[in-house]
Amino acid sequence: MVVLRSYVSGSWRSPEEEGAPLLDAVTGEEVARISAAGVDRAAALRYGREVGGPALRELTFHQRAALLKALASHLREHRDELYALSARTGATRNDSRFDVDGGIGVLLGYASKGRRELPNDTVLVEGAAEPLGKGGTFVGQHVCTPLRGVAVQINAFNFPVWGPLEKLAPAFVAGVPSLVKPASQTAYLTARLVELIVESGLLPEGSVQLLCGDAGDLLDHLTEQDLVAFTGSASTAARLRTHPGVVRDSVRFNAEADSLNCSVLGPDAAPGTTEFDLYVQQLVTEMTVKAGQKCTAIRRALVPAALAGDVADAVAARLAEVAVGDPSDPRVRMGALASLGQREEVRRSLKALTDAARVVFGDPDRIDPVGADPERGAFISPVLLRADDPGRAEPHEVEAFGPVATLLPYEDATHAVELAARGRGSLAASVVTADAAFAREVVLGLAPWHGRLLVLNGEDAGESTGHGSPLPALLHGGPGRAGGGAELGGIRGVVHHMQRTALQAGPAMLTSLTGRWVPGTDRTVTAEHPFRKHLEDLRVGDTAVGGPRVVTLDDIEHFAAFTGDTFYAHMDEDAAKANPFFGGRVAHGYLVVSFAAGLFVSPEPGPVLANYGLENLRFLTPVHPGDELTVTLTAKQITPRDGAAYGEVRWDTDVTNQDGASVAKYDVLTLVAKRAGA
Amino acid sequence: MVVLRSYVSGSWRSPEEEGAPLLDAVTGEEVARISAAGVDRAAALRYGREVGGPALRELTFHQRAALLKALASHLREHRDELYALSARTGATRNDSRFDVDGGIGVLLGYASKGRRELPNDTVLVEGAAEPLGKGGTFVGQHVCTPLRGVAVQINAFNFPVWGPLEKLAPAFVAGVPSLVKPASQTAYLTARLVELIVESGLLPEGSVQLLCGDAGDLLDHLTEQDLVAFTGSASTAARLRTHPGVVRDSVRFNAEADSLNCSVLGPDAAPGTTEFDLYVQQLVTEMTVKAGQKCTAIRRALVPAALAGDVADAVAARLAEVAVGDPSDPRVRMGALASLGQREEVRRSLKALTDAARVVFGDPDRIDPVGADPERGAFISPVLLRADDPGRAEPHEVEAFGPVATLLPYEDATHAVELAARGRGSLAASVVTADAAFAREVVLGLAPWHGRLLVLNGEDAGESTGHGSPLPALLHGGPGRAGGGAELGGIRGVVHHMQRTALQAGPAMLTSLTGRWVPGTDRTVTAEHPFRKHLEDLRVGDTAVGGPRVVTLDDIEHFAAFTGDTFYAHMDEDAAKANPFFGGRVAHGYLVVSFAAGLFVSPEPGPVLANYGLENLRFLTPVHPGDELTVTLTAKQITPRDGAAYGEVRWDTDVTNQDGASVAKYDVLTLVAKRAGA
Repeated sequence: MVVLRSYVSGSWRSPEEEGAPLLDAVTGEEVARISAAGVDRAAALRYGREVGGPALRELTFHQRAALLKALASHLREHRDELYALSARTGATRNDSRFDVDGGIGVLLGYASKGRRELPNDTVLVEGAAEPLGKGGTFVGQHVCTPLRGVAVQINAFNFPVWGPLEKLAPAFVAGVPSLVKPASQTAYLTARLVELIVESGLLPEGSVQLLCGDAGDLLDHLTEQDLVAFTGSASTAARLRTHPGVVRDSVRFNAEADSLNCSVLGPDAAPGTTEFDLYVQQLVTEMTVKAGQKCTAIRRALVPAALAGDVADAVAARLAEVAVGDPSDPRVRMGALASLGQREEVRRSLKALTDAARVVFGDPDRIDPVGADPERGAFISPVLLRADDPGRAEPHEVEAFGPVATLLPYEDATHAVELAARGRGSLAASVVTADAAFAREVVLGLAPWHGRLLVLNGEDAGESTGHGSPLPALLHGGPGRAGGGAELGGIRGVVHHMQRTALQAGPAMLTSLTGRWVPGTDRTVTAEHPFRKHLEDLRVGDTAVGGPRVVTLDDIEHFAAFTGDTFYAHMDEDAAKANPFFGGRVAHGYLVVSFAAGLFVSPEPGPVLANYGLENLRFLTPVHPGDELTVTLTAKQITPRDGAAYGEVRWDTDVTNQDGASVAKYDVLTLVAKRAGA
Repeated sequence: MVVLRSYVSGSWRSPEEEGAPLLDAVTGEEVARISAAGVDRAAALRYGREVGGPALRELTFHQRAALLKALASHLREHRDELYALSARTGATRNDSRFDVDGGIGVLLGYASKGRRELPNDTVLVEGAAEPLGKGGTFVGQHVCTPLRGVAVQINAFNFPVWGPLEKLAPAFVAGVPSLVKPASQTAYLTARLVELIVESGLLPEGSVQLLCGDAGDLLDHLTEQDLVAFTGSASTAARLRTHPGVVRDSVRFNAEADSLNCSVLGPDAAPGTTEFDLYVQQLVTEMTVKAGQKCTAIRRALVPAALAGDVADAVAARLAEVAVGDPSDPRVRMGALASLGQREEVRRSLKALTDAARVVFGDPDRIDPVGADPERGAFISPVLLRADDPGRAEPHEVEAFGPVATLLPYEDATHAVELAARGRGSLAASVVTADAAFAREVVLGLAPWHGRLLVLNGEDAGESTGHGSPLPALLHGGPGRAGGGAELGGIRGVVHHMQRTALQAGPAMLTSLTGRWVPGTDRTVTAEHPFRKHLEDLRVGDTAVGGPRVVTLDDIEHFAAFTGDTFYAHMDEDAAKANPFFGGRVAHGYLVVSFAAGLFVSPEPGPVLANYGLENLRFLTPVHPGDELTVTLTAKQITPRDGAAYGEVRWDTDVTNQDGASVAKYDVLTLVAKRAGA
C-alpha cells in the first residue's frame, strides 16, 4: 500500500494514519492512500518563510529563471513516468501531454520571460520615474519586492501537473516559496512531480513544499505576507475567500473557478466554410480532451439560429467517431472521468440541463468503453445538448464538468453578447468567424466578462493553440463566476507575488536605492572614457561628455544630399518658417544623433562591442544652423548576463545646445564585454 | 433644518424620515441631518449601469480626461464655499487645502495622465503584442475594457472632498460610473461637492451618484461587473469583504484601512543636522494636520535609542507652540476632531497605549481651545508618547486616530525593520536620513510591508510633499492591516476599473480589433505617399516603400569622416572581424537610419509636420559594404488630439537588406496635421 507523503519543513513526512484510498479512474484499483494527519502545517508555513524565502531572495530574477529552465529539462527526462501515472487518472496520452508538457511549457515560458523582461537583480523597478516636483529634486518610482511569506497553492484535480507548475513558476521567479496542496483524487501524480523536483536538487531548499491531504488548520496560520492561489469550484472559492485567516490580514487571495465558457460561431461561417469546420472540430476537441474536465472547456456553443441544425449534425457525427475507453488503448480518443463520484456529479448536472435542452448526441447513462469495465471505470459518453430557448437559465448556470456542451441559437451579434454575458464571467471564450466587423462587435462586447478571448479562423488556425489552452504569456482567469482572479499573463503573474511600493526620494537617493541612474543625480565624468571600462568596472553614473560641435548650414545641406533626406524644413527657409514648430531651417534629427555618436565614440577596440539599439528618442528643441552641440552620456543601467561574456549597458544620452537646452534625449543600448576570463 | 439629499437615478431625493443630526465639530451645533430612508439603492445601481456606463463608454479616454480637467476648474471656483463647510468638520484652512485642493489635484493629475498615457480611444491596448506561434499567424494582445458596472465608493469621514475625488477620478477615466457614499459625520461637505459636480452639468448623467446615509441593502445588489472601494476601519473592511453580495460574484473589492505608519530617523541624523530638524518638523506636522485624523499619519516614530531623548524634547517643544482651537481663528494651528465620539475613541486608544508608553507631551483629558468651548467642540491636545520597551505590543497594534504618536527606540537598521514590520502592513512610511546605505537597508526591508515609502533628507526636502500625502501618480494602499488594496498609482488606478482580457487572433484580425497595426497584417502600399495624407485620411496599414539603395564602403568612410564616428567596426576590417558580432566592416547604425529617412521622406511641405522621436530601435543584422537597403514604413497607430490641429502617428519601420533580412526595426513618431479647418 502506497501512502502519499508530504514534503514539509525539509523532509518527507508520512501521515500518522492509513488515509483514504485513491482509485484508478480506469480500473477502480487503489493507486495510493492519502492523509495529512500529523503534518504540522503552521511549521511548514514558517519553514517556507524562514528557509525558502531567504534562499530565493538571495537569487536574482535571472538566476531563478535559469533554475526553472533546468527544472524543465529535468522533468522532461521523466515525462514517461508522469504519463504512466497520468493514465491512471483517466487521461489519454494526448491529455497527459496537455498536462505534463503544458506544465513544463509554463516553466520554460517563465524562464524565458524572466531572463528577457526582468533585470538581473532582486528588485523590480517598475515603470518610469515620476517627477514629483518642478525642480527635479523629488522623484517617485514604483518598485516591486517579493512578499516575505509563502504562496499557498490549492490545486484542482484535473491538471495534477500543469496546475501546480503554473502556480509555482511565477511565484518562484518572484522569489516567493510555494506550498503545493493537490486535490486528493489525483494527488499521487502531483506527489510524484514534487518528488522529481526535490530529487533534482535544483531548487533551493524550502522553495517548494507539498501538503498531501486536507488543508486542516493551514489557513489559520496565514499572515499578511502570504498568498493563496486556489483553483476549483466556486463554492470552495467563496468559503476560502471568507476564511478568517484570509480576511484577518487581507491575505492576497486569487481564485480560478470553473466557468460556463462559450464559443460563438459567426453568421458568415456556413457549412462548407473553413470556419464552420474549425468550429465543429474545436467544439468536439473541447468536449473530449480530458473528458471535458477543463475549467476552460466550451459549455455553451452559441450558433446562429439558422445554422444550429447544421452544427448539431456535424458535431454529432464527429462525436460518434470518438472512441471512449481505456486511455492506454491506442484506438481510444477519450478516457475516463477522474472518479466515479465525478461521474455522478456530471449525471446530476445533466439532469438539470435536460430540463432546458434536449440530448442531440450521447446517452449519459450508458457507455461501452473500449478495453475497460464500464462499472469500475469512470467512463461516460460525450453528450451534446441543444436548447431551443437560449433564454432558459440552466445552460448559463449549470456546469456539467465533463464531456458536455449545449448548443444555443442566437439571433444577432447583440443577442450573442447578451447570452454570453449570462455566464456572469468566464475564463475563456472563442469567436469563430472570418468577418472582422462581427468579430469586433462580439469581442468588445464579451471582453468585460472574459479573461481570454480567441478569434479563430483561417488566418490563425494553423498556429492556434485552441479555445481551452491557457498560455504562460497570457492572462488566465476571469471575473465573476470564474473567480475574479488572474494568473499567468507573463510578468504580471510574477508581480502578483510581490509588493508594489511607491518610493519617493531625491534623484541621487533613488539611484542608490534602485541601482539605476535617475536624471538629476550627479554624473561622474571619469578620467578614462567609460567605453574603455569592462562591465565589472563600470559604475552607474559614469559619464562621457563630447563636443561642442557647431552644426553649419553646409552640414545640413551636405547631409541632405548624402542621405537623400531633403525634407523642406531642412532645405527651404520660408517653408520651414511656415511650419508650426521650426521657425526656420533646422538640422535633421538623424544628423543630430549621428554627430552625437561622433562626439561620444571611443574608436579603438575595447569593451563596448556594439550599439544594438536606441530607446525613447525625443527631439526636443530645433537645431538651427550655427547651433553648437554637446553630448553627455551616462551609464544608467548595467545588466550582466549570467553565462555570457558580456552584458547590457543602457546610457542616458542628452544632446544640448549652446544655451544648455536639450535638443535630443534618448537611451543608447550597448553590449559591453566582461573582463577576459570573467 | 437641512436634510441631506441623495442624488440617485437622475434626481435629488430627500429621505423619507428626518434623519440623524450631524454636529459641527467646533460648536456642537447641528449642521445637517442624514438618512437614506426610502432611497432605492438597487435602482441607483441599475441606473449607473444602464445610463451612466453607456454614456461614459461613448467617450474616449481623452474626452473623459478633458471633462475631469473642466470639473477641476469648476470646483476651484467654488473652493471658498467648500472651505467654509470644511471648517465645520474641525479643519483649519490648511487642513481644508489638503482635502479640497488635494482632491482637485487628483482630478488634474488624472486629466493629465489620461491625455498623456492613454490613447484617444475607448479600449486600452496594454503592453506589447505577444507572438504565440513561430509563423507569425497567431498573436496575443492584452486589452482593457471598462467594467459594465458601478464603482461603489464608500468613503471615510476624514477627507470628505479628497476621498470621493480620488476614487471618482480613476473610475471616471476608465469609463465606469461612481456611486459615492460618504461617511455620515462629514457627509454635508461631500453632498455639497456632489451638488457642485451635478450643477456644473459637465459630467454625463449617471456617471456620478450620491448616497447620503447608510448603505442598507446596497451590496446585496452588486454584480460581477461592479466594484467596491472602501476607506475606513479594518473591522468594517473585513465585514464588507465577506459580505455575501461581494463574495457571491467575486466583486472586485479594494480596501484602504488606517495603519500604524512609521517614520524612521537615521542614526546619522543627530541634533544639528538638517535631517534631525526635518524629522521633528514632519512628525509634528503629521500629528497635527487634520488633528492627526489621517490614515497615513505617523503613529510610530522609530528613532535611534541614543537620540530618543533629543527627539522627545524637540518634538515636545514644537508641540507646545501648536495652538489648538477654533479653526477659523488665525492663531490656531490645529482644529478639532470630527466629533465628540471620535474624541472618546482617541481617549480609549490612549488608555491602551499608556500601558506601554508614557506621555511625554500633552494631556489627553484637558485642553483649553483658542476661541472655542472645550465641552461642545471635539478638541484634544496633541499627545506624544514614548515607549522604553519598543517590543511591547500596544504601539504596534493600537491606533489612536488623532494627534497621537509614540516614540520607539531602535538599536540598528535590522531592529528598525523588525519593529516596522510589526505594524503588519502600512500605507506609508518615511525614512529620514542622508545615509544612502542605511536608507537602502531600511527601504528594501520595509518595502514588502508598505505601499509608499518616502526618503526625506536635504536633497528632496525642498520639494517633498511629505510623509502623509498620497499623490495621484503613486500607489496609495498597503498590505495587511492597511487593507491590502491599491488606489491611484497613475494609470494603474484606471486599469483597476477595467477587465483585462487576453486576445488571441491572427495579426490582421488583431489589427481590426485593436485599431493598431500588428506586424503580419497586410500593408497597403498607397498610390499617394502616406506622408501626403492628412490625419483623417490616413489609415492604419498605409505604407510607403523606399529604396533599394546600396551602401558602399565609400559611404561608410564618408559618414565616419563627416560625423567623427570612426569606431573600429566601421574602419578596420581585421578589428571588425575580431568582434563577436560583425564578421567584417559594417555600416554605422546611424548611417542606416539616416539613409532610411532619405528613402522614405516626402520632401515637399505637407501634412507630416515633424518627426518628433523614435522608439524601440534595434539593429538586427550587420550591414556590410555592398548591401542594399529597402525601407518599409507602415502607419501603426493614429492618435488624434482633441483641440489640436494635428495628431500623432506612429510608423512601423523595417529596414531590410537584399536578402529580405531585417537590418533595423523601429517606430518613427510623427506629428500629422488634420485637414484645414478640422
